[in-house]
Amino acid sequence: MSDKNLVISIDAMGGDNSPGVVIEGLALAHKRNDKIRFLVYGDKEKVNAEMVKFPALRDVCEVFHTEESVKNEDKPSHVIRNRATSMYQAIEAVKLGKAQAVVSAGNTGALMAISKMVLKTIQKIHRPAIISIMPHENGRYVMLDLGANTECDGINLAEFALMGNIYAKCALNIDNPRVALMNIGAEEMKGKEAIHVAAHIIKNTHLNLNFIGYIEPHEIPRNKADVIVADGFSGNIALKSVEGTCHLMTHMIKKSIKESWMAKLGLPFMMGAVKKLKKTLDPRLYNGAMFVGLNGLSVKSHGGTDALGFSVAVENAAKLVAKDFVGSIRRELENVDLDEISQEAYYEVY
Amino acid sequence: MSDKNLVISIDAMGGDNSPGVVIEGLALAHKRNDKIRFLVYGDKEKVNAEMVKFPALRDVCEVFHTEESVKNEDKPSHVIRNRATSMYQAIEAVKLGKAQAVVSAGNTGALMAISKMVLKTIQKIHRPAIISIMPHENGRYVMLDLGANTECDGINLAEFALMGNIYAKCALNIDNPRVALMNIGAEEMKGKEAIHVAAHIIKNTHLNLNFIGYIEPHEIPRNKADVIVADGFSGNIALKSVEGTCHLMTHMIKKSIKESWMAKLGLPFMMGAVKKLKKTLDPRLYNGAMFVGLNGLSVKSHGGTDALGFSVAVENAAKLVAKDFVGSIRRELENVDLDEISQEAYYEVY
Repeated sequence: MSDKNLVISIDAMGGDNSPGVVIEGLALAHKRNDKIRFLVYGDKEKVNAEMVKFPALRDVCEVFHTEESVKNEDKPSHVIRNRATSMYQAIEAVKLGKAQAVVSAGNTGALMAISKMVLKTIQKIHRPAIISIMPHENGRYVMLDLGANTECDGINLAEFALMGNIYAKCALNIDNPRVALMNIGAEEMKGKEAIHVAAHIIKNTHLNLNFIGYIEPHEIPRNKADVIVADGFSGNIALKSVEGTCHLMTHMIKKSIKESWMAKLGLPFMMGAVKKLKKTLDPRLYNGAMFVGLNGLSVKSHGGTDALGFSVAVENAAKLVAKDFVGSIRRELENVDLDEISQEAYYEVY
Repeated sequence: MSDKNLVISIDAMGGDNSPGVVIEGLALAHKRNDKIRFLVYGDKEKVNAEMVKFPALRDVCEVFHTEESVKNEDKPSHVIRNRATSMYQAIEAVKLGKAQAVVSAGNTGALMAISKMVLKTIQKIHRPAIISIMPHENGRYVMLDLGANTECDGINLAEFALMGNIYAKCALNIDNPRVALMNIGAEEMKGKEAIHVAAHIIKNTHLNLNFIGYIEPHEIPRNKADVIVADGFSGNIALKSVEGTCHLMTHMIKKSIKESWMAKLGLPFMMGAVKKLKKTLDPRLYNGAMFVGLNGLSVKSHGGTDALGFSVAVENAAKLVAKDFVGSIRRELENVDLDEISQEAYYEVY
């Protein structure tokens, strides 16, 4: 795909400080990659009021007025019936082939529901999943599903492995990603039935995954695997546990420094190291969870992020488009019948 | 129960540096609480060689020779048939009423299997669970199940809530613990069926739990609840995610300090604060996961802990015995028929 056709549709009205943060985010993304063009959906008056601050955007943005926007409290069942929202219109642009990816900082449930209904699941994929990039001790890995599917069977997990593998290749430039199933033990019969079945499917397909077996969550940060596969419930629990522990440790460190005048004296010496650390773990640099498994890319930016965070989500989307992520999944599935293999797997495992 | 009868049986041969660490741990526990008496099971020669280092132990320990011990690689199905091991003998002492609790740093699966078979599950409790104390930003909470039951239904979770509530009262001295079910969202219909059923059972029993609803893992460290209830798979995932994140952050902090000569200069000023922080989060202070739901207390010390860690597990066991933890569960269950309530719950939820 030539860079000239790199078009991303933007829901300008999603997130806490829209459309201001969104438009500033586009300006930042444009500064780093001027090949991306944007179709911007939202309240034209408000959007234009922000656009004038960034003259460079004029040539790469086309603004489309929408009367409505999805609210945080809106139910998915409600929003899928309202085509007038900026989110719906931005997603539909991908379906109509006008854009190759959509980015929104709006309501996650709504984005997921509309994306699924409008873009539809890739043939042979049973369930789309949420994937994101995360930091380990000397690099990055990807993890899915982070919450789209509360219950998953073996074939779902195997499909996540397949998609995660391609995602790691495209987004992290890893040639032969190490793929692991998250589990509560390393031994073959530990954990849940669905995980055993998934392991069997993965080992017996022609997917040629670099499958390294099970991984326990405490091993994940130690650079043991590049793709972590989990059901949406466990994946979400792990993600939020990481978030909680980061909060706890930061809180504890601040508290112990506050309570020591000696430590306060030493603080100025530490500022450089602290800044560098903050930069490595900056959640904005990992912004942009993606729904994978759909005919088109749908990217969820964190609702509370700033312009830098939004620009990272946009650039991540552009990268995946440029590497033809969706096409790669389709090609990978051409010669594989996971349904058939999964039938066998259930016989083998039980 | 009078302190005179506080007897704990000890598997002296479990853990990485047994029996040395175990015996030194008993000496530490004895120094802080000289009311506890110990029945020590293990290789008499090796045990006595360690005992001579701590003359104070002579009056409170009785040593019983065992020919064998459970190895880390032993399968639970194998160890439950071998009554000659120090672990089996120590557990049996509780069954025979010679001790009120058993502490072992040995193989978790073996300890669980033998404890369950020998001590048996409390009447009306369907499944025992693993519980442990964890730190939040200004105190401690308890969490269960941490891995005994991969799959749990609503009634299992409700029973965990009941037992966790009593545990928090006994071990953390909290009068009216806030009990929460771990879930991936706060809304009523989020997450799994078993969680919805458990919520319904808890709300409709006469258990009088201070039930505060669902809690997401990132909220746990913010002192929102005192008892976190989860199935063994999710609980184990959360626990190990916390462990992994602690490792990641510590690693990142050390690395960023190492790479900055300024930070190295400031380091001496920080040592007091670092020491204090390490003390708050010291895993040894949270040592001693317990199997709850059995007719007797069975405590698992971390296999790699030192004498301090082992002594904490012993003291924790002594505390629970002194407060008649097992008796409290039995009394709580006297007037409750969870099975009946759970039948109703399934009708209500679906």
